[in-house]
Amino acid sequence: MSDIAPVLEHLDKSIDKSLERLFSLLAIPSISTDPAYAAECRKAAEWLADDLRSIGFDASVRETAGHPMVVGHHDGEGPHVLFYGHYDVQPVDPLALWESDPFAPAVKEVEPGRKIITGRGTSDDKGQVMTFVEACRAYKAVHGRLPCRVTVLFEGEEESGSPSLIPFLEKHAAELKADFALVCDTSMWDRETPAICIGLRGLVGEEVTVRAADRDLHSGFFGGLAANPIHILAKALADLHDEEGRVTIPGFYDGVEETPAEVLKSWEALNCTAESMLGPIGLSVPAGEKGRSPLELVWARPTAEVNGISGGYTGQGFKTVIASEASAKVSFRLVHKQDPDKIRAAFRDFVRARVPSDCSVTFAPHGGSPAIQLRHDSPFVRQAQDALTKEWGKPAVAIAMGGSIPIVGSFQNLLGMESLLVGFGLADDRIHSPNEKYELSSFHKGQRSWARILTALARG
Amino acid sequence: MSDIAPVLEHLDKSIDKSLERLFSLLAIPSISTDPAYAAECRKAAEWLADDLRSIGFDASVRETAGHPMVVGHHDGEGPHVLFYGHYDVQPVDPLALWESDPFAPAVKEVEPGRKIITGRGTSDDKGQVMTFVEACRAYKAVHGRLPCRVTVLFEGEEESGSPSLIPFLEKHAAELKADFALVCDTSMWDRETPAICIGLRGLVGEEVTVRAADRDLHSGFFGGLAANPIHILAKALADLHDEEGRVTIPGFYDGVEETPAEVLKSWEALNCTAESMLGPIGLSVPAGEKGRSPLELVWARPTAEVNGISGGYTGQGFKTVIASEASAKVSFRLVHKQDPDKIRAAFRDFVRARVPSDCSVTFAPHGGSPAIQLRHDSPFVRQAQDALTKEWGKPAVAIAMGGSIPIVGSFQNLLGMESLLVGFGLADDRIHSPNEKYELSSFHKGQRSWARILTALARG
Repeated sequence: MSDIAPVLEHLDKSIDKSLERLFSLLAIPSISTDPAYAAECRKAAEWLADDLRSIGFDASVRETAGHPMVVGHHDGEGPHVLFYGHYDVQPVDPLALWESDPFAPAVKEVEPGRKIITGRGTSDDKGQVMTFVEACRAYKAVHGRLPCRVTVLFEGEEESGSPSLIPFLEKHAAELKADFALVCDTSMWDRETPAICIGLRGLVGEEVTVRAADRDLHSGFFGGLAANPIHILAKALADLHDEEGRVTIPGFYDGVEETPAEVLKSWEALNCTAESMLGPIGLSVPAGEKGRSPLELVWARPTAEVNGISGGYTGQGFKTVIASEASAKVSFRLVHKQDPDKIRAAFRDFVRARVPSDCSVTFAPHGGSPAIQLRHDSPFVRQAQDALTKEWGKPAVAIAMGGSIPIVGSFQNLLGMESLLVGFGLADDRIHSPNEKYELSSFHKGQRSWARILTALARG
Repeated sequence: MSDIAPVLEHLDKSIDKSLERLFSLLAIPSISTDPAYAAECRKAAEWLADDLRSIGFDASVRETAGHPMVVGHHDGEGPHVLFYGHYDVQPVDPLALWESDPFAPAVKEVEPGRKIITGRGTSDDKGQVMTFVEACRAYKAVHGRLPCRVTVLFEGEEESGSPSLIPFLEKHAAELKADFALVCDTSMWDRETPAICIGLRGLVGEEVTVRAADRDLHSGFFGGLAANPIHILAKALADLHDEEGRVTIPGFYDGVEETPAEVLKSWEALNCTAESMLGPIGLSVPAGEKGRSPLELVWARPTAEVNGISGGYTGQGFKTVIASEASAKVSFRLVHKQDPDKIRAAFRDFVRARVPSDCSVTFAPHGGSPAIQLRHDSPFVRQAQDALTKEWGKPAVAIAMGGSIPIVGSFQNLLGMESLLVGFGLADDRIHSPNEKYELSSFHKGQRSWARILTALARG
């Protein structure tokens, strides 16, 4: 039974070296949703495989139909854990809003004693991935071995719907199956309070394009006579919500359960108000379903959101045109037992019913995954909770998350594995937005947390 | 009293040379709405001034706060006419839809005996402008003089709201005031039937931007809680029309008159059906106010059209973002006595009433002009009608137009001049759209028409 103290010491001493390694990974613009960056995604995968090999992992870059996976193996006495993270990042537009180059990471002191790491991918998810890798590196350096048998799986398509993930898990199920999975893509409760995530919303992504005339039209000649696809699309999108903020798609709420009173109560205890959640982003009025607490809205209620819309002339100046087509990207956050396929079909019917007979509409799917409910009483959850509490000096809270991590569902369904969701991101990390950051304390104490968790899991 | 026959002969003989001149003007990408093309606009103005001087006009390029004007003078015995046209053109996007370079004009035979001139600006308005210039050139060449005293005014901002026009007319009123104006920016009834336009819809252009959070948000963390500006904008735009296709802005129909039964009857005689008007653009169902004929919808009814919309992620793939802002370009076609300023104000109130208290909305005006009703019994209208009937062998019909030509109102209000609107464009010229064209017959017989009209006006 090896001592954890020297491992923590080693992590403290090597924080600068670990930052250098993180920066070289962050400098690679591995934007998975834009084909122009395919080579950069591969570069990030190869960087990770090299780094894992330097620790002693048997690691390699694995081909898929899309961006490659990274798989690594290292033996150990304790339980067999599969650690998952992703090396791809979100696009950076609007670039003009970034205070510094998104791919030139830096450490900034934002207030006395508080430093942040800035750049795309710092929090989602490269910084989080490296907390685990650094923990393994330090443990290996100090004890010459790892406390658990560790398999790592790094994905390169998490930000673009994970098209290759399920085929890959199916093909390599035997190689990837472990006792349980560790997923580091979630957040802490706040900067001082660690958290374990036990609930995740699902996601359905759809792109809809409405087509009317076979060419752009002069609004003077045809205005008031010819169908305007922007009007048709705007009406369909506006119809998605009623006055109460509820989604109006028939059957949308099938499978949605009311959150148990005691759970709502425990969330109330977290003192989250519309003010505390919306104030930091310049808002104050909850926009979703009426009569629900802000935390319930983002943790336990389904949504329909338009993520992008375009049509007609959007350049400088003005053009009196009636466009021939208009498009929108729409996503749905799912909870409990909502069925992604049924939601997708119901949305398409909902839109089709609003398109005139002489116009047409097409849809393109962008991923779909059900919501996840995890058991919060598994022994490994309690062991991790104890380890986190030791590291942060505050009890780790069980939270839900508004975002989706489809892999957790795939681990359940395809590999029969439960997952342990521990992450060190924060709500104000601006992931998916300009000026993404990761707290230096998250990066450093995150490494220490994983060292403690691996040790605790090995002790059982 | 000079004979018209030799002038017409001269025009027939010099059609190729006149095409060469037109092509060199069309080759200049004078897109007024995009500042990147400012130098090209000036180039087009210089080209026209040079060409007018070659005919014997006292012509020059005149500075404005925006793109320059071209003014030219030529004496003559008959009445003093002010000829107006514009040398600027619409943007060309989406460029991919053009079958050939929009600024590499060409003549194509589309069916035996029918040729078209292709390229941006062929119909709107460079081709039309040159029909008049060539008529003057030929008359001068044959008779050594012009039948009327002619002042020409060519504008370079017609496609971008004409911001400099009114100040310019006010400043140079004495120089530009004539007995009446000739405007060549309208259409024929069909390829064989000439037309004089006696009614024009007005136009109000508005750009609206809704802002919510102070940054783009992750729809997983904030979806269902934070305001989505695309939802707010889509709802406001969807609310603009009711189930009957009527515009719902309070007071929008103030000043709108019912078209007299006899006028509606004369339009019915033109046999325009939804099929004949919408069929050529791939549509079949009138989209505007219910219970009105297609011609009434585009000639005598006001509209609200969204010309462009943008917000959130519109690139390849998908991004689960809640945008911080969304924008739309909206235009209103006005008829009869509708007041552009009141419509603009009412629209802004309409949108503001739909923006939550913690979000903001801003507006940018893009031009405004009331509708125009012209007298169809002025002597010069009848003289022109006779001349057109002689040239085309078919009676010239009095039509209305869905589009706006703000200058006609300015001529009325600022210079106290009536206008004669004669043009040779066609509804299928795809102006403002990819693959704009102008019938070669419009260009050739348009020149002959102007020679006849100028002669008829001189004879009185």
